[in-house]
This record gives sequence, structure tokens and C-alpha cells, in this order.
Amino acid sequence: MQHNGEQDETERPRLGVGMIGYAFMGAAHSQGWRTVGRVFDLPLAPELTAICGRDGGAVRAAADRLGWSHAETDWRALLDRDDVQLVDICTPGDSHAEIAIAALEAGKHVLCEKPLANSVEEAEAMAEAAERAGERGQLAMVGFNYRRVPAMTLARRLIAEGRLGRIRHVRVVYLQDWLVDPEFPLTWRLEREHAGSGALGDLGAHIVDLAQYVAGEHIIGVSAMTETFVRERPLLAGASAGLAAGGGASGTAHGPVTVDDAAVFTARLASGALATFEATRFATGRKNALRLEVNGEKGSLAFDLERLNELSFHDDTEPAVSAGFRRILVTEADHPYLEGWWPPGHALGYEHTFAHQARDLVHAIATGTQPEPSFADGLRVQRVLAAVEESAAKNSSYTPIPALEV
Amino acid sequence: MQHNGEQDETERPRLGVGMIGYAFMGAAHSQGWRTVGRVFDLPLAPELTAICGRDGGAVRAAADRLGWSHAETDWRALLDRDDVQLVDICTPGDSHAEIAIAALEAGKHVLCEKPLANSVEEAEAMAEAAERAGERGQLAMVGFNYRRVPAMTLARRLIAEGRLGRIRHVRVVYLQDWLVDPEFPLTWRLEREHAGSGALGDLGAHIVDLAQYVAGEHIIGVSAMTETFVRERPLLAGASAGLAAGGGASGTAHGPVTVDDAAVFTARLASGALATFEATRFATGRKNALRLEVNGEKGSLAFDLERLNELSFHDDTEPAVSAGFRRILVTEADHPYLEGWWPPGHALGYEHTFAHQARDLVHAIATGTQPEPSFADGLRVQRVLAAVEESAAKNSSYTPIPALEV
Amino acid sequence: MQHNGEQDETERPRLGVGMIGYAFMGAAHSQGWRTVGRVFDLPLAPELTAICGRDGGAVRAAADRLGWSHAETDWRALLDRDDVQLVDICTPGDSHAEIAIAALEAGKHVLCEKPLANSVEEAEAMAEAAERAGERGQLAMVGFNYRRVPAMTLARRLIAEGRLGRIRHVRVVYLQDWLVDPEFPLTWRLEREHAGSGALGDLGAHIVDLAQYVAGEHIIGVSAMTETFVRERPLLAGASAGLAAGGGASGTAHGPVTVDDAAVFTARLASGALATFEATRFATGRKNALRLEVNGEKGSLAFDLERLNELSFHDDTEPAVSAGFRRILVTEADHPYLEGWWPPGHALGYEHTFAHQARDLVHAIATGTQPEPSFADGLRVQRVLAAVEESAAKNSSYTPIPALEV
Amino acid sequence: MQHNGEQDETERPRLGVGMIGYAFMGAAHSQGWRTVGRVFDLPLAPELTAICGRDGGAVRAAADRLGWSHAETDWRALLDRDDVQLVDICTPGDSHAEIAIAALEAGKHVLCEKPLANSVEEAEAMAEAAERAGERGQLAMVGFNYRRVPAMTLARRLIAEGRLGRIRHVRVVYLQDWLVDPEFPLTWRLEREHAGSGALGDLGAHIVDLAQYVAGEHIIGVSAMTETFVRERPLLAGASAGLAAGGGASGTAHGPVTVDDAAVFTARLASGALATFEATRFATGRKNALRLEVNGEKGSLAFDLERLNELSFHDDTEPAVSAGFRRILVTEADHPYLEGWWPPGHALGYEHTFAHQARDLVHAIATGTQPEPSFADGLRVQRVLAAVEESAAKNSSYTPIPALEV
Repeated sequence: MQHNGEQDETERPRLGVGMIGYAFMGAAHSQGWRTVGRVFDLPLAPELTAICGRDGGAVRAAADRLGWSHAETDWRALLDRDDVQLVDICTPGDSHAEIAIAALEAGKHVLCEKPLANSVEEAEAMAEAAERAGERGQLAMVGFNYRRVPAMTLARRLIAEGRLGRIRHVRVVYLQDWLVDPEFPLTWRLEREHAGSGALGDLGAHIVDLAQYVAGEHIIGVSAMTETFVRERPLLAGASAGLAAGGGASGTAHGPVTVDDAAVFTARLASGALATFEATRFATGRKNALRLEVNGEKGSLAFDLERLNELSFHDDTEPAVSAGFRRILVTEADHPYLEGWWPPGHALGYEHTFAHQARDLVHAIATGTQPEPSFADGLRVQRVLAAVEESAAKNSSYTPIPALEV
Repeated sequence: MQHNGEQDETERPRLGVGMIGYAFMGAAHSQGWRTVGRVFDLPLAPELTAICGRDGGAVRAAADRLGWSHAETDWRALLDRDDVQLVDICTPGDSHAEIAIAALEAGKHVLCEKPLANSVEEAEAMAEAAERAGERGQLAMVGFNYRRVPAMTLARRLIAEGRLGRIRHVRVVYLQDWLVDPEFPLTWRLEREHAGSGALGDLGAHIVDLAQYVAGEHIIGVSAMTETFVRERPLLAGASAGLAAGGGASGTAHGPVTVDDAAVFTARLASGALATFEATRFATGRKNALRLEVNGEKGSLAFDLERLNELSFHDDTEPAVSAGFRRILVTEADHPYLEGWWPPGHALGYEHTFAHQARDLVHAIATGTQPEPSFADGLRVQRVLAAVEESAAKNSSYTPIPALEV
Repeated sequence: MQHNGEQDETERPRLGVGMIGYAFMGAAHSQGWRTVGRVFDLPLAPELTAICGRDGGAVRAAADRLGWSHAETDWRALLDRDDVQLVDICTPGDSHAEIAIAALEAGKHVLCEKPLANSVEEAEAMAEAAERAGERGQLAMVGFNYRRVPAMTLARRLIAEGRLGRIRHVRVVYLQDWLVDPEFPLTWRLEREHAGSGALGDLGAHIVDLAQYVAGEHIIGVSAMTETFVRERPLLAGASAGLAAGGGASGTAHGPVTVDDAAVFTARLASGALATFEATRFATGRKNALRLEVNGEKGSLAFDLERLNELSFHDDTEPAVSAGFRRILVTEADHPYLEGWWPPGHALGYEHTFAHQARDLVHAIATGTQPEPSFADGLRVQRVLAAVEESAAKNSSYTPIPALEV
Repeated sequence: MQHNGEQDETERPRLGVGMIGYAFMGAAHSQGWRTVGRVFDLPLAPELTAICGRDGGAVRAAADRLGWSHAETDWRALLDRDDVQLVDICTPGDSHAEIAIAALEAGKHVLCEKPLANSVEEAEAMAEAAERAGERGQLAMVGFNYRRVPAMTLARRLIAEGRLGRIRHVRVVYLQDWLVDPEFPLTWRLEREHAGSGALGDLGAHIVDLAQYVAGEHIIGVSAMTETFVRERPLLAGASAGLAAGGGASGTAHGPVTVDDAAVFTARLASGALATFEATRFATGRKNALRLEVNGEKGSLAFDLERLNELSFHDDTEPAVSAGFRRILVTEADHPYLEGWWPPGHALGYEHTFAHQARDLVHAIATGTQPEPSFADGLRVQRVLAAVEESAAKNSSYTPIPALEV
């Protein structure tokens, strides 16, 4: 009996994906797109149609490696392809606005990596473009993938169900340490013109979005300090590179670091809760420690991304004699996203969040429903980041976040 | 610019994989085969050529879902395919020997899920077949995938480097809880004729292999107790099913559980170290708690599969004032298998072990090197399991493990 | 206003305590006796009346240091004192039987450190003496102080309340590492004639008692292995010394270690549950890791003495979506023994167990109630230890524990 | 042989202690004074000479219970006693200044519970009085007992030795939850006139002192938010009471809470490091979670008071392949304060810090050396607390801490 698996999928409509960028985020998104249809039941069959990068040889190699059928060197050519319905933007933040708006104008659905943009102005333009496109049935989503760590989705669900009651405190840190060495080179992530900001936009954006998502309410004002601990770094020998780079400082030439190394801020939420935030790349020994804790009148939650399969939950309605933070291993069949994976206790990893993001976006496209986080959500985060920078520049004074009216 | 990623891979020789079985293990192996070439540099390009199962409709659906090009309903037909060079056996243990020996005789390389077989006799025949095939340049490997959790490979490396000195103690438990409910139905895993044994063969096989691998030495004798706590269970409504099943007990009819629910045993290692083992499906609240601890003269290691990205290491050569078990987050670029994955701190999951297994097997095939664990290693485990059953049947008396002479 | 605190206590009857031995255990018991009346409401006022040791100068110094009013150099003289109603035996095990039986015959209540004795025969004689004395209204208790870690008392309570249902598994280890260095000298604890056995009697006695206490049922048979890893050690320069000694090996002279360094055993409990035990002084990096885990049909408990203020509890009757092992911080006002201590979250330590033991014994004496653990309980433990040694000597074969008929 | 232990101590000079207050802190200090000479070798023999409280019956009962020889109802009478050389102030903060200054003027050494005072002005007067008294050879110390958790003393030592290099981040939280229930009554701790402030002075004072102590540098400015979540609470039925009270709300009458429930602030240290602080009594499920983390160029430390026997230490100078946060069990003989306690692995508790504090103060008095923390240190903390309140009142704007010039 002969049988060709690929052809049988023609029953489901295909969703052609075109991805721009193929560094760390491109590799992670690719794993998500390759895997999502193998694990989840989907109404559309996503196809890794084309990948785009400026260097022809490199992008062809990436296409081979990552499993994309075609390679493009001009993102506008990617937008012209009829076989691409969804554009997945994995480039540095300085190009998000131009590409995303063009893709929406070209009639594509858009998935844009976080942070949405490098400025509030760009983010506003993008949110407006997304709103207009939405009226035409196109969807736009920001890649805040940590919302789709099953433990975080479960946290949101428990809070939405009222298990924590009124929220009093949120504390979130995102700690990494890859800049501790002063000889780490000056990559694009340390240049304001490319990255917008430093730890704030890279890590802070994640925790601002995640805190608002999990708590189910918005930050209304912040007071902040930022710092650049190492103000000059060796210039990179070759082209700018991503996180993994590190490889090659170019000898004696140094250049200025133009972004923050760390940002700390306190905040008020709409409900009156107090929140604290810290984003840093100087927390020696902490590799990816996104830790979130929420305290409510009736219970509390705690999470650490370095142990992403676990959610700690304290239910204060229990008798004190046997109450305590319980470690929920978020691998049960009825936990979010777990229907597609393994039996209980079999751990998921970082990249699974990209398959989950893809799953939800595919469902949203199939049903014409706006997925979360929307570009408006991304704009909200951008406004918080801007207020952090403004407060830091103004003696840490309390800086309200404008309400969103796109 | 148009470019077809698939065709460019023709430079590398292809390795056609044919997989038999498509339940839990089949899905996990498929994810490994789909992913390995996207993440690691390989000398051969593995191809998901054909999948095999008895039910034509189900196997075609599985082929579609899991990404296999062809579907077969007779495993002998799979062995006849010229485009299949490697046979990956994911069936229950009672068919391992027949299929594996036939595949080796058909000139294929073989990857066989653990446990190697349901009896020492079968395992001996398989090891002999593998030895003969090895002389013809064919390779055979057992799927003890936990050796390829990066933390476990690192543990082996640290011990091999002498960081622990002479080993004094090994303690390993593998705790699950999916049989706690007496109404969980009588699946094939609870029937001796299909599963060979219960927790012993399923979980015990893993920890026996892992202990010997990490410690770098063999178990020379055991003293054991086994128990079946729930001796009758509801018959399954339909066909036998795997772990995830649970779904459907068929009402009032019950049948006997003919395997152990739990096995505990003590052991001596060749070096004189003492070891303790426990395998159970009745450890309420423990979902996949394979915990291993090794104490040596100069240091100790500890691991828990529920936190598989972490290895605890105590270096006793440090001054006591600042010594302690350190939590190594096994996600650094120079940790085993991490060269292909994400930046430090970005967690891997359960299924990554199957990609690692595939990576090593592909390299072994390309270079004609016997991969580990070999069928002889699998036979060694089988002899320990048999000695456990023998000791349990003979008043727990100490039962030596015959030295291996294949 | 002048006021003498000491004199006001005359309202409560005094309980004169006479303690024999003033090394590690003597110091710990002293802290218990000094503190118990300051923290708990007691019906009797315990008085540190007299302490006894063979070396006059040393015992006087110990009396000063530890707060005892009088010093004796002959334990028979201590038994003759009319102002002593309770004899607290903190000597090595080889003198327990003689002293305890004499004290009981002298009409005293007795608290005897664990293990009760160095042999079953001695323990039987002691249990008989205790029974006879009990008929005269005297009480005898064994110092298994870990029963009185609040987390362990809570564990017992939860199991007694049925929160775990039928017990399936008990696993207990007691891991220390102070013998890893082969140059650690040959103290009395390594000599069979003084210590009876090694890790087995010292650490194993604790975990056998604790397992039976927490589970609420007895061990009915064992299968065991023991080992002496380092068979010769440097002779001590001076007199034998306790755990903390270490100080002085005497150069080149070595002597034989005549006790076990480690003991591992499996066991069956009366209910059919399986249990595993390990006691060792060779678990490098583990300082005082008494870890106990109990799995029952409805829930599980886990504990580690290195974190003695915490009890882990999994309640399997909760919905799986939010179930998990909860970390109960056992410092709430309604936790066992906490009524006398600090507000929630303020940690207790090791020595508090001796105050708790003293509290319960004082209450027992005041009310004439037999305290637990009784000498009969101590004999039960002794029989398990003896069966462990017997099984280890007889090829690990299963060795039943005789039922207790004192 | 008869021997009276008490009389032999006359060789060492006695140190008469007079304590004012006997609630929670009084009980904890008493345990420290009773125990210190039993565990540590001291140059002076501290004597629990007299205790003072306003209610004669209650103070006499406390004297009996806690072990003090005499009871006084007027603190001035206590200061007049010739047999008291050291006054230990355990009253609420509003009386600290008056008593401490009077005690110093009366020629006594003084130990004053934290926070030093309820205002900067009081603290300045106290620091000046201490400085003048210091010239006469009298010593004054503030009871920031958490400096003497062995893990914290070890942390300070590791940082002082340069193991962390230049400090980049300090993050400290002190989380309790005893005010979550809105029906918890209005005790003195919730009234500004008695307590000065709320979580800020109670918990914040601890973490400000501890952060400065461990880091070895001062906070130079802060930006803060404070909040009172529950603004009215039931009036207490009887007199004001301490933490443990809770007992009796008086029905329907409510009064205003005049202190903060929580305070969050960011800070800059003298070295340029960034710090974050949070003090709250609304962190549901957190009982006494003082967590401190310090990140330096060469390493990091982490601590949680709920696991006070452990210090986490990451040494970044190790090879990444085996680096990680190690859990130092701070119970080794060469750890701070451990020389007097138990063998390795035997946990200490909360109250041990008071014995350690007493030990160091006794040594300081014997040698005429100023102990730490001094009243000047207490004033430094007070200035930080005042700056926090000032910043919170001024839109969170950055508020520098005046340098100390007593």
C-alpha cells in the first residue's frame, strides 16, 4: 500500500506563511510553524512557504535548514507572493512598523515579534493600520509568546475565575546575565537606533505585557530608574548579530552603548494594586529568570520561566493548617495547550510557546476572530515602556499611562 | 528569486526511516525525526519515509498527522522497501524481537524502543542478531532516550571525568501515579503477555539503564520485592490502548492485572557501591518523577526528570564554607546537545531527547560506529529485570546478574 | 517593686531531672529542659537538677555551661538523689539497658535516647522493666525526637485523619556524609561494642521509628544489604569522642571499623504497602537529609529534615487542573507545638524537638499517661534493626519481624 | 559529689540585663539572653536581672515565664537599678527615643529594638546621645537581628571578600500576609502615633538595613510608592496588642488605619547599583518571606528567610558548564555563629538570631568596642524610611538620602 501523506492534507485549506528574518526568533518561529499541525488539530494547514533575508546565500541556507520552501531577499517581494497569506515578522524592532504596515496594506495577516515597535509613534501607526485592516478581515497579532506558556495561560484562567480575588500586588522580574562581561561586543541589541531600548524593550516588554495579561488589568502609571552599567563595548568584527553572537569583538575599537542595561520601576494598576518590575541583563547567574508573582485577597500565584512547566498557587480559602503554595505541574491533559502534547509529567520547553501561538493564530484566521495580543495590546505595552523612559528621565517622577484610544 | 529548500538537501545522502507503531512513542519519535535535521548539522538527511500500523485508516491518518510520506499496514512490507534504511520499532514489547531480528536480517539498521524485549531469551536472540548484523555494517540501538536528556549526558560526563571519585551510592526512583484509580482500565500495559512486566519493564528498565550509564558500571546483583496493589481492573471497551487511553472502561466486566504495579530493589554495583531502585505507578501526585542521585567520594549528583533542565552537583573538593549542591541549568552552549537549540536559560522539554537520539544514531550510521545503548546494553538491562523478578519470587534473596557474553 | 521570678514557680510541683551524658545529645536535651517551661504552659516545673559524667572536671564544666545545678560522677549516685524524679539517659547505646533498668528499679521515670539499646535482648529487658515500672506509675520514653518535628507530627495527624487513604508506598532515606573522608578517626560510633551498629542504629533507627509513626503501621518484614566502605580508620589520639570530634587522629595507627557505613533495605508494612529505607554516612554533600515520602490512595506527603519547617502535601481529591504538592510552612498557630513559639513564618530549628519531647513527657508524668514512643516502641524498632542485620547476613532474604508480645 | 553550677560562674564578671517590654520581641530577646551563655563562650555572664512593664500582674507573670529575676512597672526604676548594666528596649517605637536616651544618660549600655525610632528627629537625638555615651565607654546597638542569621553574616563575608565583585543589583522583598483579612483589628501597629509607619517601618526597616549591611554600601536615593489597601478596621476590644493578638475585634466600631499597608521603592546605591524594595503585609500566603538577592560582576547571592539555613551562591568565575546557584546549608562549624550549635545539617531557627546578637553585644561590652549596627546605622535606616515617605508624597520623585554627619 502506497500513500502520500502530504497530498491528503489538501482537504484543509492551506495557509501560506512568509517569514522575514531567520536569526534566533526566526528559528523559533520556524519550529512553531513546522510543529503546530503535527500536534494540534487545525482548521487550516500552515505551510512554510517563503523566508526572507537580505543575504541571498544565507537566506537560502536558512530556508534549507529551517524547512521553508522558498527564499526571498527583498521583503517587498515576499509581500507580493500570492501563496503567502500570513507575514511573520522576526526582524529587529526598527523595521517592524514599515514591514507590518506594508504587509497589512498588501492584504496579508501579520504576526509581528515583540516589542511591537521602537516608539509609541510607530506603534500607533501600526495599531491604526491593524484596525483598518481588521475592517477588511485581516488579522494582526504581536508575538508575546510567554502568554502561551501553559502555566501562564493557566494563571490567567485562575485569576479570571476569581481564584485570587482582588489583586493587591504584582511583582515581576526578568533577569538575564549575558552582558555582565564588559568585553561582550556591541551588537545591534545595544544600539538605540536598531533596538529602541535595551533590557527595557527586550525583557521589559515581555513582563509588562505578561503582567497585564495575567492580572487582567492595565498599568496606569509608573515611576522608573534605568541604568547603563557598561557604557562602551568592543565593536563587532563583522555585521551585527543577535543574542547568540558573542563570538567576535573586533579588537581594540569600542563604541558607545546607547541603550539601558537595566530598568527598574514601580507601578500602579487600575484596581489600585501595586506592582514592581525589573528588567536586566546584569543578573549574574540568572539565565532566563522571568519570575512573576501575584497576590490577591483570596490567593496568590508564582512562576519562574526557568521552571516553565510549574505554576505555584496558594489558595487562601483553605484552612491554614494544610494551606501552602502548591506546585502545579502544568502538564495535565486539561491544562492549556496540553491536549496536543505528551502524558502528564512530560515537560514542555521554550519553543512550544511558538507552536501555541501559531495554533491560536491559525484558529483566529480560520474563524475571522481578532487574536490576542492585538497590535492595540502591543501599543499599550509600548506606552508603558515610553512612560518608563520618561519617568527615568524626569527624576523618577510618577508618569501616568495614557488610556488607549486607537 | 525562487528557491526550493527541499531539493537543495540532495547534496547530503538521505536516510530513509520506516517506523512501526504510532501511539505515544510513535508520535514522540516522529517529532524527533522531523526536528533533528532542522536543529543539528547532520551528515545524512533523515527522511520520514514510511510508517506502519495494522489499521489502514488509522495509519494513514497518523502518516498525515505525523508527517510520514507513506503508510504501510504490514511491517514485513515496510522491511521490503528499498527506500527504508533504518527501521524504528515503536510497538509494544511483545513484538520487538520478531520485528527487530527480521529487520536486521533484511539489512536494515534498527532503532528499538525500550525495553529491548519481554524476556531475556528474546533479548539474547536480538543481541546475537545485532552482533551478526554489525559484522555486516548494520547498526542497532535501543531507545533509552533518557540517556540523552542533556542533564543526564552531562552527569555521565562529570562522572567519567572523575569529578565524583569512587561511587558509593546510587539511588533512583521512577514514580508515576496513573494507576492509583482502581477504575483505570486493563490496557495492554497491564497484561503480561503484551507488556512482559508492569512498572518494572516500563519504568524500571529506564532507571536500570540510566543508573548503569551515568555511574559507568554494572549492577552485579539485586534483592527485590514487587507488588500488584490492584489485582483486577475493568476491561477496556474496545481495543487495547496506550497510556493516554483511560477513556473507556467497559462497564462491569473485570479482568486480572498480570503485571506488577510496583517494584523496589536494592543492588550492588561492580565497584562495591550500594544502589536502591523503585519503579511504581502508584506514587500519588508524582507524574514523571525519575529521580537519580549518585554519591561519590569527591562529589554528588542529583536529578529529577520533572525538572529536566537542571542538574544538581555538589563538589566536595571545595571549602565547606561555600560548598553546596549547585543547580546547573543545563542550557549552556557547551552542554551536551545544546549547540543546536536556544540561548542559555531557554528550557528544553521531554521530546527533545528523541531528536538527540536521532542525531546520534544518524552520526553513527554515517560513520559506521556502534551507537549506545546497543542491543547488548539492552540485554544487560533485561537480565537485571529478570533477576529482579527472580529475587522477588525467591523471598527477596540476593540474585546475581550473569556477566554478559553474547 | 522587687520580685523574684524563681520563687513564684513554687506553686507548680517541680520535676527534678537528672541527666547522664553531656556530649551532643546532652547539650541538646539540656536546651530542651532549659527552654520548655519558658515557652509552654506546663503542669510541672522541670528543674535541671543534676548532670552525670565520669570525668569530674569535665562534668562540672558541663554543668556550668549547660545550666545544671549539680554534677555527679557516678550514675548510681544520680539515681540515689531524692531530688531527681526523671532520669534522662544520653550515653552511648551500650550503657542504656543497665542504666535505664536501674533507674526504673530506683523508682524514677526514664527518658532514654535512641536507639533504645544495642540488641534486641537488651531492648526486651528494658521494655519488660518499663512495663513493670508502669504498673507502679513510672513512665519510660524513648528519645525519637524527630516524631516531634512539627511537620512530622502534622504528617501523622493528616494520615490519621485519612487524608492519604490507604498507604501504598513509604520511602525514607537518612543521608549524612561525615565518614566520606577515610581519615576520619575511629570514634566509639564506629565500634560495634559501643554503638551496636553504624548508620543502621544511628540513622536507621530514626527512620524506622519515624516511618512506622507517620504511617501508623508496623513493618512486618525486611530485605537488606549493608556495607562498610572504609574498613580501617586511624585510631583516635585520646579518649573516644562523639560526632563533632574528628579533631584528632593519632597518626599512623589504624583499627578496624566494626559497624556498617550504610544500610539499604526494602520492607513490607502491615497494610501491604511497600517501603524502602536507606541509612548512610557516605552521601557526600548531604548533611542531615532525612527525607520521608508517603504515597496513599488519596494523597501524598513529603518531608526533608534539611528544611524541617516545611511539609509537602498533595491532595489527590482536588481537580487535577489545580492540584500539586503544596509546601505547608509548619509555623501556624494551630500546627503541632506552635502554640508556644513565634508568629507564622518564623522558623524553628533542630533543637526545638527536644523542648517538644520534654513538653509531652512532662504532661505525661503529670497525668500518669504512658507517653509515646514507649520502650515497647523502641523494642519494635530494635527488632526491625535486628532483622535488617539478619537479612543482610543471609543473602538479603526476606526476614519477618516478630510481632510484639512484651 | 555535690556541685552548684550557678556559683561557679562567679569567675566571669556578670552583666545585668534589664529588659523593657515583654510581648513578641521581649519573649524573643529573653530566649536569646537565656541561651547565649549556654552555647557560646562569653567573657561576661549575662544575667536576666529585671524585666519591666506597666501592668504589675502581667509583668510578674512574664518574669516567671521568661526567666527574669525581678519585675518592675516603671522603666525609670529599672534604669535606677545598680544591678542592671544593659537596658534592652523591646517596646513599640514611640517610646524608644525617650527610654534609650534616658538609659544612656543613666550610664547604661543600650540595646534598642528596630526600628530605632519613629522619626528622623528622634533617631538623630538617639544617635547623638549614643555618641556622647560612647565617649564615656557606653555602647548602644540596634536590634536588626537579621544581620545575624548565619546565612546573612556569611553573605556579608562573601561580598566583603570580593566574591561578587562590583555590585550591580540588589533586590529585596519582605512579604507577610497578616493584614489580608479586612476584619483583622486595628492594633497599635496600624496606628501612626505608636508605630510611626506600617509595613515600611516594621518590614522595610529590616530590609533597608539588611541590604546596606550585606552589600556593604549605602542607599543614596529612593523613588517610592506606598499604599493603604484597607483604610478602616475594627477597633480592638481591649488594650492595644501586638502581632499575635488578632484575638478580638470589638464588634461594629471601626477606626482609620493611619499607616501604610505596603511600600515599594527603587533605589540607587553609592556604587551605582540599582536596588528594588518591597515591604508588605498583603502578600497572601507569604508568612515571613524576606528574600534578598545581590548580583555582582563575579557572582550572585540569594536568600529567603523562610529557608533561613540556606544561602544560594553563584560563582561566575567557574566554567559555565558546571556553574550554578549552589545551596549552601549554613550549618558548618566554620560558618558564622555555628561554633556553638549543632553538627552540620542541624537547622537553626528564627530565635537563634537573638542569641547571636546577645553574643556579639556581650563581647563588645567586654572589649569596649562599638557593636554594629550602631545607633548611627539605625539613623541611616531612618533617613531612608523618611525619604521613602517623602518620595511617595511627592509623586514618587527621586529623593536623595542625606549623608550622615552625626
